[in-house]
Amino acid sequence: MPSEFDLIANYFSRPAASVPLGVGDDAALIRPSPGYELAISTDMLVSGQHFLHDTDPYWLGHKVLAVNLSDLAAMGATPRWALLALALPEANEDWLAAFSSGLFALADRYGVELVGGDTTRGPLNLCVTIIGEVVAGHALRRDGAHVGDDIWVSGELGGAALGLLHLRGELNLAEAQAESCLPRLHAPEPRVTLGKGLLGIASAAIDISDGLLADLGHILERSGTNANIGLGAEIGLGLLPAAPAVAERLSLPHGRQCLLAGGDDYELCFTAPVERRAEVIALAKRVGATVTRIGAITAEPGLRVRGVSGELIMLEEQGFDHFAA
Amino acid sequence: MPSEFDLIANYFSRPAASVPLGVGDDAALIRPSPGYELAISTDMLVSGQHFLHDTDPYWLGHKVLAVNLSDLAAMGATPRWALLALALPEANEDWLAAFSSGLFALADRYGVELVGGDTTRGPLNLCVTIIGEVVAGHALRRDGAHVGDDIWVSGELGGAALGLLHLRGELNLAEAQAESCLPRLHAPEPRVTLGKGLLGIASAAIDISDGLLADLGHILERSGTNANIGLGAEIGLGLLPAAPAVAERLSLPHGRQCLLAGGDDYELCFTAPVERRAEVIALAKRVGATVTRIGAITAEPGLRVRGVSGELIMLEEQGFDHFAA
Repeated sequence: MPSEFDLIANYFSRPAASVPLGVGDDAALIRPSPGYELAISTDMLVSGQHFLHDTDPYWLGHKVLAVNLSDLAAMGATPRWALLALALPEANEDWLAAFSSGLFALADRYGVELVGGDTTRGPLNLCVTIIGEVVAGHALRRDGAHVGDDIWVSGELGGAALGLLHLRGELNLAEAQAESCLPRLHAPEPRVTLGKGLLGIASAAIDISDGLLADLGHILERSGTNANIGLGAEIGLGLLPAAPAVAERLSLPHGRQCLLAGGDDYELCFTAPVERRAEVIALAKRVGATVTRIGAITAEPGLRVRGVSGELIMLEEQGFDHFAA
Repeated sequence: MPSEFDLIANYFSRPAASVPLGVGDDAALIRPSPGYELAISTDMLVSGQHFLHDTDPYWLGHKVLAVNLSDLAAMGATPRWALLALALPEANEDWLAAFSSGLFALADRYGVELVGGDTTRGPLNLCVTIIGEVVAGHALRRDGAHVGDDIWVSGELGGAALGLLHLRGELNLAEAQAESCLPRLHAPEPRVTLGKGLLGIASAAIDISDGLLADLGHILERSGTNANIGLGAEIGLGLLPAAPAVAERLSLPHGRQCLLAGGDDYELCFTAPVERRAEVIALAKRVGATVTRIGAITAEPGLRVRGVSGELIMLEEQGFDHFAA
């Protein structure tokens, strides 16, 4: 029977070929490329809070890395290295095998090396730190949006949030709908390649982890502060790329809620000057992503959503007040 | 009443002057110095596992950073940046104020900037990722010890482990003894300056977090593997710098256990060629550290401890079998 240390060694200690020193010393040694900055981010996922206790460990391994890669995507950075700290209630070999498979499958697709970490006993908690590289001074940030810029989002929105409502038993999706929504919740695809392509095109970017209105609100706040002005946005409800199951529910409060405020989609929301529209579309085509233009940055502060007939939707009455910019 | 987000912003968002982009975007941006490698490490502390539930939050803030700084000390790296991910059962303002004070007090002493993090609700869990810089190719590692090298340790050993036995009620220390041991447990001092000074002098180094025998064993294992030979060590029980309260208990099993296998001291154990003795001593004097030569690396595999009369102490009989190299 292998010890807990052996399990960790078996499942998480792979040679990290590109670094001077990987797992197994007091610290890992990495050698950044000259002329680049490092983008670094950490995300902690807690059982019962960010995922249900019985979540498939393979997809949990995928997701804990995906949400970190999504942060790098929003910076336009190229992922390089990751560290994994995890607290486990027990050393369950099957669970660890599946978890590490899911994590490394995604890591391999993006050339990420696991260079260090920590394991301990405790309530299930997964903490990944991710490090990427971006040419100095060129990273996408939240604070670069200007009045008149187009607002874009990648992919489809609301599917992950709708899938979660289904999993929690708060509504009951038809089988085909559940099958289209649950992968968005369990296996989000970080938009790394799109993010890298947006370097030099986009003026600001963020990944949609808290919901479109909240995350677009962060861009408005940071960009407004940066420019010392109030900034707003106007987006069209009918323009938003709703996941199909969400689109069918747009007349219901929970459908609109999933679309405008659903978290966990991990798509990108970004802004770009009007004259870059053709480049954005060409980039999306080249990298196999879908992008949708949903509105524009305005000089009038606040975040306004217009319905399909052009009417202003009263966000306050719908419980979105705390997302207002 | 401030929201949870406000609390975090209040207590953890300080300007990070040296970085292009700190807390508040999808990722932080750091700019490594040309010609340097980055040493990076992550440590997770879990309530009830690494610290007692009622631990003073000021010292908890100190300790979660100290254990990470200790990893950098063992690499000879200069600390630069940190990220903090924490799961909190509730947003307790007093607790957060004290915790962040302790963390930043230590961070300021070593010029560490908190550049990012994550906060979430969950069982109390603290995860720090630390990043330091070291001239490329010069870091202290575990795998450089050679036959004949002196073995050194910094500071005093066993005090933290003895203090923990007292806290747990497994023994009862006199007040003066408790007062000398508990600070070693709660407020370990990372040997950052000593570690940096050992660059170019020491052949291998590790920080003592699991206990002297276990951690010296890691040096033997990694250095032996590196050299493709078996490596051993012989140390003298009477040479070890026991904390005073531990020294008084050396005839008792728990005293010896604290000295040889007590974790949490966060002193450095390092090896250096015999001809560097004077330099080691001069360095220690210069940086205000104490260092003690406790034995030597041997060609004979295994870790041997000799008693004060030169007799070999049977570690197996004393429950140290699993620490044998």
